[in-house]
Amino acid sequence: MRPMVAVSSFHDRLRQAWADSGSLLCVGLDPVRSRLPSPFKQAPSGLRDFCCAIVEATADFVCAFKPQAAHFAAEGAEDQLAEVISHIHKGWPDKPVILDAKRGDIGSTAAFYAKEAFERYDADAVTLNPYLGEESVRPFLQHPGRGVAVLCRTSNPGSAWLQTTPEEAPAYLRIAAAAREWNRDGNVMLVAGATYPQELARIRITVGDMPLLTPGIGAQGGDLEQILRAGLDAHGRGMLISASRSILYPEVDMDAVCVGVARDFAAASRMAAERLHDEINNLILALAGP
Amino acid sequence: MRPMVAVSSFHDRLRQAWADSGSLLCVGLDPVRSRLPSPFKQAPSGLRDFCCAIVEATADFVCAFKPQAAHFAAEGAEDQLAEVISHIHKGWPDKPVILDAKRGDIGSTAAFYAKEAFERYDADAVTLNPYLGEESVRPFLQHPGRGVAVLCRTSNPGSAWLQTTPEEAPAYLRIAAAAREWNRDGNVMLVAGATYPQELARIRITVGDMPLLTPGIGAQGGDLEQILRAGLDAHGRGMLISASRSILYPEVDMDAVCVGVARDFAAASRMAAERLHDEINNLILALAGP
Repeated sequence: MRPMVAVSSFHDRLRQAWADSGSLLCVGLDPVRSRLPSPFKQAPSGLRDFCCAIVEATADFVCAFKPQAAHFAAEGAEDQLAEVISHIHKGWPDKPVILDAKRGDIGSTAAFYAKEAFERYDADAVTLNPYLGEESVRPFLQHPGRGVAVLCRTSNPGSAWLQTTPEEAPAYLRIAAAAREWNRDGNVMLVAGATYPQELARIRITVGDMPLLTPGIGAQGGDLEQILRAGLDAHGRGMLISASRSILYPEVDMDAVCVGVARDFAAASRMAAERLHDEINNLILALAGP
Repeated sequence: MRPMVAVSSFHDRLRQAWADSGSLLCVGLDPVRSRLPSPFKQAPSGLRDFCCAIVEATADFVCAFKPQAAHFAAEGAEDQLAEVISHIHKGWPDKPVILDAKRGDIGSTAAFYAKEAFERYDADAVTLNPYLGEESVRPFLQHPGRGVAVLCRTSNPGSAWLQTTPEEAPAYLRIAAAAREWNRDGNVMLVAGATYPQELARIRITVGDMPLLTPGIGAQGGDLEQILRAGLDAHGRGMLISASRSILYPEVDMDAVCVGVARDFAAASRMAAERLHDEINNLILALAGP
């Protein structure tokens, strides 16, 4: 684990990362073995090496990285996940790493999941599922400088029957209100998917300037302008716009743009990240007005 | 992985395990390093060896085992978890292993969690969190012979504000109704905590004879007679009564009962398992009446 000499809150570290990088883009690291470029596909350490190459290629355009646990766990590659995170900390110590693991259990067990996220993997933050209530979140909040991203409104279709009911007090807004209470130390974020901009707007109103982690851009089809309009905080920041598959596996797009460069997966991913970064920043400027 | 020559449904395998063992007791394997007996406490493979010793000591009285993922993951001991499961399959091939991991994510990621549970760990079933809806469950249902236990009403206090609202159509009952739909191949169970027997009774009415996984007996204080009355199916079975801490760390109880035997942790755990097994079966007989 890194020495944490002067521990500032997770929100402060995130704000610093937004300022330093000039970016709200968070690249999700979801390595799918069958889709990896050929040098990585057969290599035992292919998941790690591919992710590290993506990190190096895209770091100039992102404020944070979000490795996804299941993609490593499926093949028993937990050590590779730990190495990817360590690689990011060494090369880009100011870019937070959000472990996407969606853990959630009763308090005594949640303490072990917190240890998994913050000690075993040394992540800066971790995604959590709140269905078991506050006690499933609390043990994570006792780690100074670390943060959580609590599922609020997820980006997938077929989740509304649990998340948006009852109409007068939908679960996702009750979670948003609870998260505001849990956030005593500047360490709670919410996951608010890009595919439901109207609900994102209601979450933003409920939580003030709490950071929102927003997946669902790119492969899942969220509209960038709508979600920025709905989700930016008063300072034109406050969001982690997360893209995974559209950055990691952009070959189709890239072929159309520039055949020569697209043959190099890292250059293609870098170009996809740069393009999304520019698109986000141009929209923020346009939304800010003259 | 074990060869699955003639694959029967997970429910059929569970019914066979109930019949063969004459027990509804499921022992949860939640190894806490600081609470392990001294030979295991310092040993690198202590989690595995302690769990295997508990399995051997208690197997006569249980129908299934439920290892808990976080307790291993917190110290990077995923391989020990896999070895515990493999040990159970070898010695007690007819006792299902339920991996308690409470995973839940969008469909493309859920497929990797299913691979983690059923291929990497070779578990027979896995606990799932349904907050992301059906697509987070579906990939798990495509593994023949395997099962899922979907969180419905959890045993912890502080979960009612999400699980039991709104009153006229509480989330836990909507999940129970959905689980009945998902259960096309005899592979879906529900997690229904022992601490809320009235809600357990409503779940039983909703799902017919679907098996229920019921934690919260023992350390969490659920009342055994009430929950059996509420949760047994029409055949006097249908439940996995899960106990972890009260079986793994029973020294206080045991000292009072029998000082000589209690010094041997395995004998104490065996005695705790036998006592709970007997208590369950005596209550089932009493409830069945003359």
